[in-house]
Amino acid sequence: MALTGVLRPGHCQLRVLDLEESVDYYTNIFGLVEVARDESGRVYFKCHDERDHHSLVLREADRSGMDFYGFKVLDKATLDKLESDLNAYGVATERIPAGELLETGERVRFRAPTGHVFELYAEKTEIGDGLGYVNPDVIIEDRKGISPIRLDHWQIHGADLDGSRDLFIKVLGFSLVERILGEDGKTDMAVWLTCSAKAHDIAFVRDERNDTLHHASFLLPTWERVLNAADILAKHRCSIDIGPLRHGITRGTTIYSFDPSGNRLETFCGGYDFYPDMKPYSWTQDEIGSAIFYHTRALNERFLTVVT
Amino acid sequence: MALTGVLRPGHCQLRVLDLEESVDYYTNIFGLVEVARDESGRVYFKCHDERDHHSLVLREADRSGMDFYGFKVLDKATLDKLESDLNAYGVATERIPAGELLETGERVRFRAPTGHVFELYAEKTEIGDGLGYVNPDVIIEDRKGISPIRLDHWQIHGADLDGSRDLFIKVLGFSLVERILGEDGKTDMAVWLTCSAKAHDIAFVRDERNDTLHHASFLLPTWERVLNAADILAKHRCSIDIGPLRHGITRGTTIYSFDPSGNRLETFCGGYDFYPDMKPYSWTQDEIGSAIFYHTRALNERFLTVVT
Amino acid sequence: MALTGVLRPGHCQLRVLDLEESVDYYTNIFGLVEVARDESGRVYFKCHDERDHHSLVLREADRSGMDFYGFKVLDKATLDKLESDLNAYGVATERIPAGELLETGERVRFRAPTGHVFELYAEKTEIGDGLGYVNPDVIIEDRKGISPIRLDHWQIHGADLDGSRDLFIKVLGFSLVERILGEDGKTDMAVWLTCSAKAHDIAFVRDERNDTLHHASFLLPTWERVLNAADILAKHRCSIDIGPLRHGITRGTTIYSFDPSGNRLETFCGGYDFYPDMKPYSWTQDEIGSAIFYHTRALNERFLTVVT
Amino acid sequence: MALTGVLRPGHCQLRVLDLEESVDYYTNIFGLVEVARDESGRVYFKCHDERDHHSLVLREADRSGMDFYGFKVLDKATLDKLESDLNAYGVATERIPAGELLETGERVRFRAPTGHVFELYAEKTEIGDGLGYVNPDVIIEDRKGISPIRLDHWQIHGADLDGSRDLFIKVLGFSLVERILGEDGKTDMAVWLTCSAKAHDIAFVRDERNDTLHHASFLLPTWERVLNAADILAKHRCSIDIGPLRHGITRGTTIYSFDPSGNRLETFCGGYDFYPDMKPYSWTQDEIGSAIFYHTRALNERFLTVVT
Repeated sequence: MALTGVLRPGHCQLRVLDLEESVDYYTNIFGLVEVARDESGRVYFKCHDERDHHSLVLREADRSGMDFYGFKVLDKATLDKLESDLNAYGVATERIPAGELLETGERVRFRAPTGHVFELYAEKTEIGDGLGYVNPDVIIEDRKGISPIRLDHWQIHGADLDGSRDLFIKVLGFSLVERILGEDGKTDMAVWLTCSAKAHDIAFVRDERNDTLHHASFLLPTWERVLNAADILAKHRCSIDIGPLRHGITRGTTIYSFDPSGNRLETFCGGYDFYPDMKPYSWTQDEIGSAIFYHTRALNERFLTVVT
Repeated sequence: MALTGVLRPGHCQLRVLDLEESVDYYTNIFGLVEVARDESGRVYFKCHDERDHHSLVLREADRSGMDFYGFKVLDKATLDKLESDLNAYGVATERIPAGELLETGERVRFRAPTGHVFELYAEKTEIGDGLGYVNPDVIIEDRKGISPIRLDHWQIHGADLDGSRDLFIKVLGFSLVERILGEDGKTDMAVWLTCSAKAHDIAFVRDERNDTLHHASFLLPTWERVLNAADILAKHRCSIDIGPLRHGITRGTTIYSFDPSGNRLETFCGGYDFYPDMKPYSWTQDEIGSAIFYHTRALNERFLTVVT
Repeated sequence: MALTGVLRPGHCQLRVLDLEESVDYYTNIFGLVEVARDESGRVYFKCHDERDHHSLVLREADRSGMDFYGFKVLDKATLDKLESDLNAYGVATERIPAGELLETGERVRFRAPTGHVFELYAEKTEIGDGLGYVNPDVIIEDRKGISPIRLDHWQIHGADLDGSRDLFIKVLGFSLVERILGEDGKTDMAVWLTCSAKAHDIAFVRDERNDTLHHASFLLPTWERVLNAADILAKHRCSIDIGPLRHGITRGTTIYSFDPSGNRLETFCGGYDFYPDMKPYSWTQDEIGSAIFYHTRALNERFLTVVT
Repeated sequence: MALTGVLRPGHCQLRVLDLEESVDYYTNIFGLVEVARDESGRVYFKCHDERDHHSLVLREADRSGMDFYGFKVLDKATLDKLESDLNAYGVATERIPAGELLETGERVRFRAPTGHVFELYAEKTEIGDGLGYVNPDVIIEDRKGISPIRLDHWQIHGADLDGSRDLFIKVLGFSLVERILGEDGKTDMAVWLTCSAKAHDIAFVRDERNDTLHHASFLLPTWERVLNAADILAKHRCSIDIGPLRHGITRGTTIYSFDPSGNRLETFCGGYDFYPDMKPYSWTQDEIGSAIFYHTRALNERFLTVVT
């Protein structure tokens, strides 16, 4: 049967240091669509190709990083069931009332062992992608900037990777897709998990710095668009971390950059389709270079150390 | 939760008029890997990127067309449950013993209202894609010919489209993704269904010719590879039906050709990801040209009439 | 030594039936940049990537087609020399004063044996591509529509193909790159000629209809952009003749469409580089399908018959 | 008029430390075609798409680097004329007899001010690309490895950049296309020169290490093939210097790697077409990062220092 339970990364709230500078960046360079602002001053964005009201919320703050990570679930019954399962697993939850985020239903919030705040929700107003459901065209014109297809996944860091991994697998129904093993050949140093047929919907990396964001990732349709993303970032003198390149993990192609507040963003393409009859891929420490940066097999210090 | 129930099109048995000519075609031009032959003379193929033992079985016969269509399901418990559900829905099933197809477990076979023979199975030996699960490389070298990634879906024709559609949705858990409506604006003339996050795993078209195949479709990774497929087919003077082109339906890009026995094959790329919070796309009769061949908006007689 | 003599197709003046409708089409769908209008009402366009003032001039008229075809030559000395050579060859020339076309120097005009009016000129104001010559960026943003790189070549029809072919080769220094031979295996039914390292700068087809245009062609950088051109044309319900496809001749990939006045336009990509140590490619009548439409090997009536 | 004079980089002789290891690399990983071996033990290669007998000659030696760089000229008259012009310019020349390189005519050899040995030649046996000149197909099958289209250009280093630049421009008819200026805003630190319509046929970099090779470059048809080249190099654990990336200079996309002897190779795609009415692009020292590696704007030490 097609997807049930947790469907996909649906929204996240990002802290930025200068709101208007960031709005300009996310609109004109990153190429998202501003859809709304709320009373608290938060600015809501969606990708051109997304149908739900928003996927990225910017909040001005004095430090960068992510406030919370939201997954859309199939329906309200699923939401109730997952909350109940979380509680049964010993995870405290909080209900955020509908409307606290614009056009979004009630959210079930909890903190994972790695310190991150997650949310589940079943309802968000569908505002569409402009193509409609009757005799739709196949392209969206008048895009600006990089213009990714959708919010795709996050890589986040925290000490208790095992705890968050188990919570996502045992309670939220995620599958383990890839892992980097430690020197002992047993310990997970990083895991890539999926709730769908994607190679990853979230990745956890073992890191003493709890509740930190390595990157938020947005999908591009082709390797040519990865090049275009790199060209646009370079033209606007944005800070590029590394890329374009290929990952060994997920086989995706990608470029990493930083938004004006120093939050790392990935715009990537590809990755295989996950099916539950696959075994997890494992990477050993001696091949960690190939795992991350398949071509050069050499990690860079910034990629390993900078989180927000 | 990730995929459960029916996972994907797993294998199909195709009738060919001249076995060795077809083996040469599927090996050297279409670019599949011959993995085995059985006592009855059938020849088994997989795509380079597939891990299960085979996805296409050729049987020599005096007319072309497809013997049966097999879907892989999550596990044996799912197989039993779906058989029980089929029976409860009034569909007779038959158990084909393990090993009747090489390296394949027990299959549950039934005939759909459109006349096609379907099978469900939970087990097929994993022989791998040559990359392994530990520190895998990202590319497979020494491909020949078109070399698609996987068997992807089938488009099949029969009179009782409503019956097969309902069976797949109500019993097998498929979702309706796209439909072409008749002149009355209500009747489904064609439907695209998914059991996964793909835009389609199977399509049914209303057609008096029961148990017929319009095409078997194999996935390519990029639009550049669609061009390459077209070039290879042309170089070998294979019969090309139409393409390269874009579909309105699914947004995929594609080229259609015929194997030496006249069976239509699609090698395609793309298509959006399906999520269950999407509504079905509908196409009306006046836009059927755009639905099928988005660019030229003109159907060709051969595409509409030739089935095997 | 790098290119000398005739450099490239530099401009052409196209007749359109409704000027403002055409301006809208060439601006918003075809994606050219309007740069000027002159006193006679003509509208001047350039491609985003072109540096010279204009490459396409639209003139409102009661029938479609091309008024004249202009080639840029290396310098004024070359212009004088070529005029002298034309006259010596028996071709009458006319000097069009500088400024008759905006920002364009003196033009040497002559009529070729196939009835077409050609022009040579050495000077056109360089207005640039917006990137400059010092530390240039590599991409131009805010393109609209198809947005080709440059005017690339024309295919034109007339009875005395031999006459025009010889004139271009013997006097203007073009090289024969490809040819379609007639049933006798000797007569040129069509020829592709280059004045540069491109696979073609102009093509002549033998056709009783003198002074006719088959298509004006504009360059796209990639096969992905050919698909995008097709998608844009389809979205705006423009009339597409055929494509996307591959030519056997030149190996280019392409899509053909019609502007609102019925003038055929090609937006294409690729083609090999020409060097003078190549021999001309020849196509025989039995392979004319592959020559024109490599994949399907089937010509369409419209492509063969419609000229303006 | 189409190209005259010096046509293109035609061959070069590369020193390798272990001949058979190198033959395996250039055949199976780099994807060239071994065409011959001569009595002195040299091994000759061509790219699949090249028609002349060979473009790369390997010679086993105890140090890596390039023995000589050969340009093909239009014809024997051109060869004589250029030799005479070289002599008149004060450059001594030597005639290497026909056949010293297999299937190659007489060569005119000279040493440039940067210390490099260059050759001009007019004749090399055309062995073809397997497609022929009558009704040619458009693709070459059964390629192995990276399989570039052609030898494209070289970047070479030496102290007297001004001398070699002037020699190539004033005597051999090359055009200056791009340059990196020194801190004084006047001195050329690097120049890119063309003898054709390519963005570069050779580049000279000011460097005290005379007669050194930075890289030999081979052309790929698409950015997707650049990725494929990177994947192949990585799969075979070849040493990759940097890439895939975009150059500011020439706008080409590229990946740099090292052959088993430490010779740097570029496999690249793209670059604009050069016309003689362009002005040279200039890059200033503060933008040298963008000039070389457009995306990251950061040079790496290895790229700057390693030559052979």
